[in-house]
Amino acid sequence: MTPDELKAIVRTVPDFPAPGIRFRDITTLIGHGEGFAAAVAHLADRARAAGAEAVAGMEARGFIFGAAVAVTLGVGFVPVRKPGKLPVETISADYALEYGSDRLEIDPGAVAAGQKVAIVDDLIATGGTALAAAALLRKAGAQVPAALFAIDLPDLGGADRLRAEGIAVEALMQFEGD
Amino acid sequence: MTPDELKAIVRTVPDFPAPGIRFRDITTLIGHGEGFAAAVAHLADRARAAGAEAVAGMEARGFIFGAAVAVTLGVGFVPVRKPGKLPVETISADYALEYGSDRLEIDPGAVAAGQKVAIVDDLIATGGTALAAAALLRKAGAQVPAALFAIDLPDLGGADRLRAEGIAVEALMQFEGD
Repeated sequence: MTPDELKAIVRTVPDFPAPGIRFRDITTLIGHGEGFAAAVAHLADRARAAGAEAVAGMEARGFIFGAAVAVTLGVGFVPVRKPGKLPVETISADYALEYGSDRLEIDPGAVAAGQKVAIVDDLIATGGTALAAAALLRKAGAQVPAALFAIDLPDLGGADRLRAEGIAVEALMQFEGD
Repeated sequence: MTPDELKAIVRTVPDFPAPGIRFRDITTLIGHGEGFAAAVAHLADRARAAGAEAVAGMEARGFIFGAAVAVTLGVGFVPVRKPGKLPVETISADYALEYGSDRLEIDPGAVAAGQKVAIVDDLIATGGTALAAAALLRKAGAQVPAALFAIDLPDLGGADRLRAEGIAVEALMQFEGD
């Protein structure tokens, strides 16, 4: 299936999680056997082209695409987790939300020095989560050559913010006007 | 890699999340490219043998194994989510924790009537989460022929509880004495 065909499977839910927001919902994409496999295959091709030696995905939806891409490539998966979930001493990064802030954690032993780790997530909006994940991976000694998304909302500028950090960004589909 | 070899990659963390608990940590397994791919391949073989037409995984660690198994089989993935995450009218099930209770939700449109949905998760302990997920999937009209886990803690009885509900249970490895 082509990215345009995949885009047609994404469900748009108006006014979620707040009035005026059109939520691009991947539930219908991952629920479509052929569509989900195709999306993962496209993302894996791009991760391979970026030389990824491991894949990192952010809790929780990033686990869905990231783990499947890692298995497709036969490389390890690095879970970027919410606070308190990992059973070891972690390193953490804070990032801003629309109201307040949140924190991500990784096990520093999960990446090797100089290892190329591609970030995979379902969607990039403002890029705050992906930037925090990239900062964490770099703090742990990894390189972050690429960040790959099923969906980009280009009007929110996240892809450009990541590129400004020297990270190649690719998305399978764009939704404009968000 | 054999299940015994995979078991050797699982990290045991003492006294997490509470004193006296030996936490069986899959971070090291999923971080091992060959090991993670082998675990997913074993689980996918068992899901295929159970006739799975879709795979359900529980937030958050169940997403890691479940989504990869779904992609391996080329079937849809049904995310079983924590409350308030899905952007549609959901159906929900409560389940008991050691202290208090928690709730799981699915999008009832994510499964078809009579569809065979296999549950996949990283670990089964008392089985409360898996039983709640099975109840939800059945409420939505699905069949649940099998529940598949990377790790079983047989002393905690979860696998037997699922079998009592008519669900075949398989795990790649057992840790006794927990």
